[in-house]
Amino acid sequence: MSVSRRKVTVVGAGYTGATTAFLIAQNELADVVLVDIPKMDGPARGKALDMLESAPILGFDSKITGTSEYAETADSEVVIITAGIARKPGMSRDDLVSINVGIMKEVTRNIVKYSPDSTIIVLSNPVDAMTYTVYRESGFPRNRVIGQSGVLDSARFRTFIAEELKLSVRDVTGFVLGGHGDSMVPLVRYSYAGGIPVDRLISKERIEAIVDRTRKGGGEIVSLLGNGSAYYAPAAALFQMAEAILNDQQRVLPAIAYLDGEYGYSSIYLGVPVVLGKNGIEKIIELSLTKEEKAALDRSVESVKAVLELI
Amino acid sequence: MSVSRRKVTVVGAGYTGATTAFLIAQNELADVVLVDIPKMDGPARGKALDMLESAPILGFDSKITGTSEYAETADSEVVIITAGIARKPGMSRDDLVSINVGIMKEVTRNIVKYSPDSTIIVLSNPVDAMTYTVYRESGFPRNRVIGQSGVLDSARFRTFIAEELKLSVRDVTGFVLGGHGDSMVPLVRYSYAGGIPVDRLISKERIEAIVDRTRKGGGEIVSLLGNGSAYYAPAAALFQMAEAILNDQQRVLPAIAYLDGEYGYSSIYLGVPVVLGKNGIEKIIELSLTKEEKAALDRSVESVKAVLELI
Amino acid sequence: MSVSRRKVTVVGAGYTGATTAFLIAQNELADVVLVDIPKMDGPARGKALDMLESAPILGFDSKITGTSEYAETADSEVVIITAGIARKPGMSRDDLVSINVGIMKEVTRNIVKYSPDSTIIVLSNPVDAMTYTVYRESGFPRNRVIGQSGVLDSARFRTFIAEELKLSVRDVTGFVLGGHGDSMVPLVRYSYAGGIPVDRLISKERIEAIVDRTRKGGGEIVSLLGNGSAYYAPAAALFQMAEAILNDQQRVLPAIAYLDGEYGYSSIYLGVPVVLGKNGIEKIIELSLTKEEKAALDRSVESVKAVLELI
Amino acid sequence: MSVSRRKVTVVGAGYTGATTAFLIAQNELADVVLVDIPKMDGPARGKALDMLESAPILGFDSKITGTSEYAETADSEVVIITAGIARKPGMSRDDLVSINVGIMKEVTRNIVKYSPDSTIIVLSNPVDAMTYTVYRESGFPRNRVIGQSGVLDSARFRTFIAEELKLSVRDVTGFVLGGHGDSMVPLVRYSYAGGIPVDRLISKERIEAIVDRTRKGGGEIVSLLGNGSAYYAPAAALFQMAEAILNDQQRVLPAIAYLDGEYGYSSIYLGVPVVLGKNGIEKIIELSLTKEEKAALDRSVESVKAVLELI
Repeated sequence: MSVSRRKVTVVGAGYTGATTAFLIAQNELADVVLVDIPKMDGPARGKALDMLESAPILGFDSKITGTSEYAETADSEVVIITAGIARKPGMSRDDLVSINVGIMKEVTRNIVKYSPDSTIIVLSNPVDAMTYTVYRESGFPRNRVIGQSGVLDSARFRTFIAEELKLSVRDVTGFVLGGHGDSMVPLVRYSYAGGIPVDRLISKERIEAIVDRTRKGGGEIVSLLGNGSAYYAPAAALFQMAEAILNDQQRVLPAIAYLDGEYGYSSIYLGVPVVLGKNGIEKIIELSLTKEEKAALDRSVESVKAVLELI
Repeated sequence: MSVSRRKVTVVGAGYTGATTAFLIAQNELADVVLVDIPKMDGPARGKALDMLESAPILGFDSKITGTSEYAETADSEVVIITAGIARKPGMSRDDLVSINVGIMKEVTRNIVKYSPDSTIIVLSNPVDAMTYTVYRESGFPRNRVIGQSGVLDSARFRTFIAEELKLSVRDVTGFVLGGHGDSMVPLVRYSYAGGIPVDRLISKERIEAIVDRTRKGGGEIVSLLGNGSAYYAPAAALFQMAEAILNDQQRVLPAIAYLDGEYGYSSIYLGVPVVLGKNGIEKIIELSLTKEEKAALDRSVESVKAVLELI
Repeated sequence: MSVSRRKVTVVGAGYTGATTAFLIAQNELADVVLVDIPKMDGPARGKALDMLESAPILGFDSKITGTSEYAETADSEVVIITAGIARKPGMSRDDLVSINVGIMKEVTRNIVKYSPDSTIIVLSNPVDAMTYTVYRESGFPRNRVIGQSGVLDSARFRTFIAEELKLSVRDVTGFVLGGHGDSMVPLVRYSYAGGIPVDRLISKERIEAIVDRTRKGGGEIVSLLGNGSAYYAPAAALFQMAEAILNDQQRVLPAIAYLDGEYGYSSIYLGVPVVLGKNGIEKIIELSLTKEEKAALDRSVESVKAVLELI
Repeated sequence: MSVSRRKVTVVGAGYTGATTAFLIAQNELADVVLVDIPKMDGPARGKALDMLESAPILGFDSKITGTSEYAETADSEVVIITAGIARKPGMSRDDLVSINVGIMKEVTRNIVKYSPDSTIIVLSNPVDAMTYTVYRESGFPRNRVIGQSGVLDSARFRTFIAEELKLSVRDVTGFVLGGHGDSMVPLVRYSYAGGIPVDRLISKERIEAIVDRTRKGGGEIVSLLGNGSAYYAPAAALFQMAEAILNDQQRVLPAIAYLDGEYGYSSIYLGVPVVLGKNGIEKIIELSLTKEEKAALDRSVESVKAVLELI
């Protein structure tokens, strides 16, 4: 009941991590600690200071700190993990997974040590497997370890639908299930523009093109940038999930959740609609699926499991 | 009187340009066109698309477009120039100036062609000389060509003062005059915390340390980052200036303005307090200066003139 | 292309009018003129001044003016009509209509005289008939005369659904068609919580209770207040419609629009889903209706026509 | 460290109380309970419901509840008291004070019972004496019982200065000391426009006129409204003080604080600059005053004491 400042830690001071920190601070959602490995201590401090110096202009009083010391992250309510390496030319997928699993374990031990009551949101790739790793390593209950992919994927889907229909993005909703990327299952049936199912407004061909573009949304940005990958929309997604938890909004959002029988799967992290609130995942929503949707979700599960087996 | 969407062009799709575009769009100040040279067409498009894909999450309907075609910037109300190269190891200052002058001229010709009624805000370095170049090349009246440095410098000063006093940045004001960087003249006398002159709250030694840190504020970030320079606070500064103009706020802000006798100088762009509104610089405010402040400003003018002579 | 401050006029300085003005100014959507009859000149000025005095605290630079002189409303882009009397004990409905028709005509003549290019939003009751009156009197094209009722009705519906499901109001959408009040036609089929049709989440009985409560939503507030009627949610609805137009958001919102064959009706103002943007009503959206929904809409039309015949 | 929704109670469901609740909820600062006496239970519920029904439109998830049961206010972090009667024709000032003292005592007992760790902000008039009454009755430490008057008075002063200079209200600061109304002591020396002392920008005569208008600011609104008094700016002031505390902003604001030797006074509540943060009043700032200012403050103290003696 006594007033205290809230605290969020963002692990990884790359562009996604920094932009997430900026959105959280700018909206005065919480104080933010941007933490990275010792080698990146300078950049973490530099970005934090640069953002802090925007505060008098943008008018926010949240503190932003950059560091490589986890002690400074102590007592965070939410911890967001953006750390991890990206796949480099010549690197096998197994190598990528194995390196990022190591990073997740190390990061998680620090989170558990300093913020044992926190809720963790994972962005690092491959996100389903990394969220699983953090869950296992943390020993946290499943409601407090969540992966991000659906908020971003559905934001892309909504952007393309709004553009197609020339309508406000505020009035377009959409859902995706399953894994991130190729095995993503967009639920067109549950997507609306102004409350009208989009399949009544857009031809089947155009919807398929949009679904395809959504699936490859990350790659589209990578290929345009030439160097690096998307970070604005991913950061916005992380911000929204953190806000839903910190402000106990009870929002219905797609997220990567640990399934324990839901949708017929167990012991796996998979993208499904959940309710996010102060307890992290308050509830997993089970939609009724058509045979085709269930089959696509099965394929998604297979692909997630294939990565899990590498671990 | 008829309703129309406002349009802002940001020239230069680097981190400062992109972050400026993001702030403008996110706050629904205007639609934004992010324009860069043909070689950077992909990154400009990529960043614009990434930002646009955050719109359904953050809830904004401003459009963001990336391009290398100035035709798409047509009829912008405000144009913000962040283009230009940074000084590389081994490059003489003369070479830097000469290259950036060339870029400014090229950019300005395009702005004049496509947005002849716009107001231009310049960030490119060395900013006093670059703003002068844009002014000459554009043929625009002096109120419609403005340079940024004081909003950023005073934001840094205010951040450090607020930190020192452990007070809200909202309640700390501060002003800087003169050139950007070493020749900056912070007006401590016109700086307040909660309305109280800061020199009554902070010791002379600490104020001098803070002034010194402010002067070297850009360098501090560069040295922490290791690679690259500040972009969050610079982008916030550009956003604030654009907002003051687009929303006709009549704000008192430090800006680089063309002096025509004010403060005893002529034919020079210098950092002074101005009123920003729909006409760009609505007014230059002439503060009474002490002998010491005037001497410091004279030195600042010398240093600006030294660069101008290179042009 | 030149920057200019936007202007909105709110006719009627009662609680709804004043709260609408407050929301517009606070969000810096436009400058606001609050106009009322000469007898109410003082209250209009008093409320405007009181709101203006909150500006340094809330941080907005929109101007708010109170007046009884329509000359001060000149060149408004949007005009919102909240004027009109409420039904008093012993007053017949015919008398009410006849008095408010007189007020609408007088107000409209002033709007046409001073803001001939404006878009008009009508709240005054009975709103279908009053919007029709303003349309006829103004001679404006139908896209520029719009009535409010559906945004408010669906906001109430969404509030009750969110409460029932303990979910964020952000994730509940809903639509109503037809007249305001008893003849309102809530489209439960087009209402979703987190993208899931609400009739899969809530029992038929509870939905019917919620629909009934929505229909009587205005009366519920009247009866609780004891004296006066709702004004916060109505003002929010007016603000949202004005924002959609001024910011050209292309939003899908329920609004009272002049039908010219749509849904099989003509020469009548009726609540239907529309797209709101810079041209006012950009488009009327025709939903496919079930036989029951069409029958309910027919009854709504009858009830609107019965009022129109009084005019 | 665990996430929980914040709670603010507003005592008094009149226009100021309701508008304060609206600002708090709309900005998602906290959930709000609007509590009034049993006779006003209906209006409290009605206003709360009306505001709640604006949430889907304005996009906030804060809960607003109206009630006459203090049990529902339990565990509030901040309690704002707007209750109390206004002086009616024929009522002596002694009668007014005596009635409001009774109300304050009753309200305070309920606050202490249900929210023993809260910070209390008092608006009720005469505010200096009412804050004193609440302080005594509550037994709370002095930092947790605060009166509002200076934020409102200085907002009016700033509005008039900004209007005079045609500058953004964002760039005008100002301070008032002492009691509310006639005995208010505006510190023109500590008032700035864009950092420039206003007495260098505005003639002595105009400043005196503005000071005089500020002193009578409440009366100006009363006389324009004809019926009732200001509530928008007072509510904004209460909102700002609550925000400073709940978000631990460490803001420098004028507030009515219990003096224990500061400024040479003791055992009195008086308007002085304070720092507001999570502990309520974190610090009282002692400005150096001129002989004239001190004399004016002495007169203000006399006038506050005269009221205290009635209690």
